[in-house]
Parts: sequence; structure tokens; C-alpha cells
Amino acid sequence: MGLGFRIEAKCSRTAARMGELVTPHGEVRTPAFMPVGTQGTVKSASQEELRDIGFDVILGNTYHLYLRPGHEVIAHAGGLHKFINWDRPILTDSGGYQVFSLERLRVIGDDGVMFKSYVEGSEHLFTPERVMEIQRFLGADIVMAFDECAPYPCDYEHAKTAMRRTHLWAERCKAARNASQALFGIVQGNVYRDLREESARAISGMDFDGVAIGGVSVGEGKDLMFGVVRWVAPLLPEDKPRYLMGVGTPEDILDAVECGIDMFDCVLPTRLGRNGSLYTTYGRINIKNNRFIEDFGPVDSECECWACRNYSAAYLRHLYKAEEILAARLATHHNLYFYQKLMDGIRRAIRLDELPDFRREFLAKYRKHKASVHDENSRIEPLNRDRSEKKDYGERNS
Amino acid sequence: MGLGFRIEAKCSRTAARMGELVTPHGEVRTPAFMPVGTQGTVKSASQEELRDIGFDVILGNTYHLYLRPGHEVIAHAGGLHKFINWDRPILTDSGGYQVFSLERLRVIGDDGVMFKSYVEGSEHLFTPERVMEIQRFLGADIVMAFDECAPYPCDYEHAKTAMRRTHLWAERCKAARNASQALFGIVQGNVYRDLREESARAISGMDFDGVAIGGVSVGEGKDLMFGVVRWVAPLLPEDKPRYLMGVGTPEDILDAVECGIDMFDCVLPTRLGRNGSLYTTYGRINIKNNRFIEDFGPVDSECECWACRNYSAAYLRHLYKAEEILAARLATHHNLYFYQKLMDGIRRAIRLDELPDFRREFLAKYRKHKASVHDENSRIEPLNRDRSEKKDYGERNS
Repeated sequence: MGLGFRIEAKCSRTAARMGELVTPHGEVRTPAFMPVGTQGTVKSASQEELRDIGFDVILGNTYHLYLRPGHEVIAHAGGLHKFINWDRPILTDSGGYQVFSLERLRVIGDDGVMFKSYVEGSEHLFTPERVMEIQRFLGADIVMAFDECAPYPCDYEHAKTAMRRTHLWAERCKAARNASQALFGIVQGNVYRDLREESARAISGMDFDGVAIGGVSVGEGKDLMFGVVRWVAPLLPEDKPRYLMGVGTPEDILDAVECGIDMFDCVLPTRLGRNGSLYTTYGRINIKNNRFIEDFGPVDSECECWACRNYSAAYLRHLYKAEEILAARLATHHNLYFYQKLMDGIRRAIRLDELPDFRREFLAKYRKHKASVHDENSRIEPLNRDRSEKKDYGERNS
Repeated sequence: MGLGFRIEAKCSRTAARMGELVTPHGEVRTPAFMPVGTQGTVKSASQEELRDIGFDVILGNTYHLYLRPGHEVIAHAGGLHKFINWDRPILTDSGGYQVFSLERLRVIGDDGVMFKSYVEGSEHLFTPERVMEIQRFLGADIVMAFDECAPYPCDYEHAKTAMRRTHLWAERCKAARNASQALFGIVQGNVYRDLREESARAISGMDFDGVAIGGVSVGEGKDLMFGVVRWVAPLLPEDKPRYLMGVGTPEDILDAVECGIDMFDCVLPTRLGRNGSLYTTYGRINIKNNRFIEDFGPVDSECECWACRNYSAAYLRHLYKAEEILAARLATHHNLYFYQKLMDGIRRAIRLDELPDFRREFLAKYRKHKASVHDENSRIEPLNRDRSEKKDYGERNS
């Protein structure tokens, strides 16, 4: 097993923990935010920028990389780290979410899922063993079990079948695992408490290197999502890292950290950045707004990122209106920097046992201006991980 | 007048010269290639990258910046340098080319040109005085006279009328000039030798700070274009910088330098980069080609740019196939670096009086591989400056 996890501090007033994951490619400070590099690149950012911002780990996606350029090409390059020139930890999602998102293309059975490539229509079979093999070829530090991600809404029987299959496949992934990669199991069960609790116990009992909560942030809204987190988190092993998949807004992350979650990934900072929505100390703003036409100061006067140190809100607005690539670059960089600073603040606050104070101060500022676009509720903007990224203008372009 | 020009070396076998322009924002080594930053950004590059590559000067476009974000916004920011955060020299094109490219939208008279904004349809009048005023607001180091750029093909009478109007406007631009900015006149006359010679003499006689050859690279092809250059260049003042607008390929630049041209601008390295065409020591390649699927070496083994030092041809190919923004970034950076190294080589060769040898060695390598895409003939790919950029996928995106 390729992972060590050490909890260095705990919050005395919440379930939050702060610590460190040790992987073959270095340490990951937790709670951690992992930028999403679906196709082997975090959209519009370079690997040098991600290092400069200070991210310890990024995501890759098994499904996308299997279809293009192909796991064998990446293996021939010496693995995903070498292929994309990223020498820090990588986590690969198993592709379960992606396969089940492409509803019209799939045939599901207990053995696995048959689907058609969105790239060129060819047929493919994903089984737990096949997914583990592909992830071995990719060579990430942390790999995810192959799960069945039920949609929302979803009836009880469908959710139960998907959960049972996820447990069956979890055992098969464990049996097929590569000893040098850490393997995380995934809790399913949709929005049904008894299923979520059954799944949390089942996956926790399988001695994975970490446990993820999957099947959330698929349109169920913040209240239901945090219902799931609050049912599941207390049942997970104390000494293993916990990963809430596809979450979330800054407020979601603060809430989930207080529930004891250690790892997050989300397309929000990159996707919103490409669409002109920027996180600031005083709330999220739409840079295309007329009030920025002659705002020659930085987007966020309290931010020290590359964009804020060198370029004005007015220039960024102009770049957006003119549909220039530099707009996406600057906004993506800024939003990722904002997330990383938030995680830095969260980790420091847990170490000092001041998390609730940090949270209060952060939110007092973040919610201050009415003019800003608040994003308390993930129902307003379903995150839908990779799939929703396909819809925005940055994905097809560049 | 804001410009000094010093010729430091001349080629003993051709008309090539090597020297330095002195502007309020620093020196420009000549012969110089100027990346095109039409809307206040060189597409997909950052100003930091342009500095790192070593460009002395970049272009902005009066027409585009007047329409969006507006010259008054830029003046309020403290000028174009401050607005885009570029502290080295800037040259602004006058907008003549753009106004005359939008054929259906314009009404031309001796006073000026009435046109409709492509942004939102409003009506605008460009006169020589108005264009000089806008360029004063933008605050570039070098500004261009407002000219009438006749199309290709174009009958003799039309070409003659446009040329006469260009001369009339040139005098009015001089009268309306801002003393702190260098002003270049533009030679017109289409592909007619007597008109080109008349225009070269007329513009040369007006004591501009530099002289540009305009109305080339509009689809007339390489032979006709170099006919124009060979008629005009010998008639231009020896002690003033000479600028061949919208040119060109590496081979065009070598040819034009030997005719005594000092300055170039062209969208080719950026536009081709966004479309997956990369310049290498051994010719231009299409990175989407299957032969790069498992080419884990750099795009150009003799290149030391950011892209070639860190990323493989196989990764770049993957990024293109996946339509990722990082593809455009890496290729643009690489192509601009290639152009800058070419200009470095040309300047060094002139200083050492070895230009024909440099040219022979460069072309021997550059034309070596049949597999590469050669670009000897600009007829194959009319450059059409900004206008043609509107057609490629990078312009509307990101």
C-alpha cells in the first residue's frame, strides 16, 4: 500500500482534522483541495502554475484518459506523472461517475458496464478488474474503486441495487489492486439514510486506504448533500482519509471540513473562472459587470495571486468581453489561488484550534457585499463534475 | 518626436541592416518581429511570457481598442501600457486596414470613413485627425498614419484613388500628431509599380519617423508582394526604420530583411499555434499528426522554450485532440519563441556580416523534412492580418 496518513491536529469544537497523507510522490496536506485535471490538464492552467500556487495533488480521470490518449500511450510515456510533467501526487477517479453519466450509451450488469466512446463511438467494457488495470497503467498515487453512481432523483430500489453492486465491485477492486498504489473505496446509497449507513459500514469494513463519499453533488442540493455527509462521516474509520467527491463551494468545504472530511475536488474554481465568475474575499463577482469597466485596481485587493498583482479588474473585464484566452487563464489562476488560500487558512485554523473563529471571520467578509454572487446553495448550480464541464464554452474551445 | 533610430551594422552582400530604435519605453533591436496584440493581449500569451521570450515591442490595434474597451477607458487607466501591464514599447496600427476590411459596413470619402461597429452596430467616423486623437489616448510609443488599404485584386483607378487619399491623410495625420509619439507613414499603391514608386517618394518626402509598406499580404501572393517590396524599399529614406506590415513566414522575413526591412508583425505564429501548427528547426509540423502519438521527446529537440523544456510532442498532440486551452498556450509560446530566435539569429548574422550564410543554413534545415508543412508561399495562406484571425477557432473562444 502506497499511503500513510497522519492526523496532526483535531478541532475541539467540530469533527475537523488536519494532517498529512504520504504518497510515493510526496506529501499532501489535509484538508486538501485537489484541482480537476480530467484530461491530464487542469483547464487553462499549466503544471508550473499549479506548483506555484502550491497544490499538493491534482486529479486525473480514468474514463477520459482511457478513451484519449489511451492508458497504453500514457504507460509508454512512463505513467501519467511523466506524460503531463507533474511530479507531485495524482489521484485518478475510476470513471464510475462518467460511465453512469452517459446514460444513453451504457448497458449495466453485475460484471460491469458496456458503453460507447463519446470520442468515436467504439464499444468498451469497464469491469472492476479492467478499471484497476487501467489505473495501474496510469500510475496515480491514489486510485479509486469502480462504483455505480446512481442519479438524482433515484428510487429506493435503484439506489439499493447500485449500492450493492458498488460493494461487490469494491471487493473485486481490492482483489485486483496494485500494491504500490493507495486504493480508496466509495460509499454510495443516494439520499437514503439506511443505504448510506449500510454502505458506510460495508466500505469501512473493507480496509481501504481511504474512503470516499460518492454520488453527491449530482443535483440533490446542499441540504440533502449535507444530510448524507452527516450520516456517513461518523461511521468512517477515524484513522483513514475521507474524500467528499465533487464538492464544492467555499462554504460547502468549510461545512464538510467541520464534519471531518479531509479531501475535496471540484470543477467550480476552474469552470466559473472560465465563465467570468471570480471568488474574492468579499464574495463571488461577475467580472463582466459594468461596475468593473473602469476599476483599475485588482479583482481582490486582499489577494496576492499572479493575476491580482499584475492585472486590473478593468483589464480582466475587457479580456472577457473580447473573448480572449488570457481571461480564462487569469481567472482560473485567481480562483485556484483563492481555494488554495482557503485550504491554507483552514489547516492553520485547525492546528491552532481556531476553526470556528476562522469560519466566522471568513464568512463575515465573504457574505458582506450584496452585489456579489453568493453560492451558498449547490442546488442553484449543480456541479455534475466532469459532465457539466462539457457544456461550458471553455471545454470545446482553446 | 519620440524615436531615435541607429543603424549599427549593414550586410555587405544584401540591403539588410541591423540597429536599434529608441522609444520612451526602451529600445527595440532591429530587424524586429512584433507579436500582434490586437485587443490588448497577444492571443493566449501573458505579458510575462512575452517579456521572458524577449520581445522588445508588441502591437495593439486602434480600431479594435477604440470599439472595445474604448480609448477613453484606456486613457483613464493611464494609457495602454498601464492598462495591459506592458512596460516596453508598443506600436498601434491606425485601424485603416480594419476599417477597409469590413467592406459592407463602410462609406468612404475624402474626409474619412464612416463605419458600423462589429461589436454592437453603432456608427463611427474615422478621420485622420480622429485616429490621431485616439492613438494619443492609447499612448503607444509608435503610431501609424491613417491610410486607405485597397483590396486585392483591385483595378488601377481604385488603387490610385486610395493611394492619393492615403497621401492626403498622411499630411493631415502629421499636422494632428502628438509630439511625444513617433509617427510612421504608410506607402500604398497596391500591386502597380508606378503607384508604389509614387507613393514611396511621397511618403518618404513627408519626414515621418519611419515608413511602412502597407496593403501587402492581402492575398496577392509572395511573388507580387516581393515585387512591391523590391520597388519600394530602395526609395525609402536610408536613416529611417522600415516596417513591412502583416508579414510573414520565416522565409518571408529572411527575404524582406535582405531587401532592407527593419520591422515585421504577423499573426502567423499565434494563429497557427492555436490551430496546432508548430514551427521547428526542421520545418513546420502539424502536431495533430498520428506520428506524434507516442513521440515523448520535445516538439523541437533544438528548442529551449518553456514548452519544449517541459512537455512532449505526444502530450501536446493529446491536448490538441482534447481541445484543451493548454494546447494553444504551449504552441503559441513555442511559435513566438521560434520567431524571436530567428530574429536573434538574423541580427547576430548581420552584425557579423554573415547573413547569407545564416539564411542558407537556416533554410537547409528548415526545408529538410518532406513530412513538414512548408510555407514558402503566402498565397497558400493569405495572412490578412487581423481580419483572417476572426475566422479561426481561437478568436471566438476562451
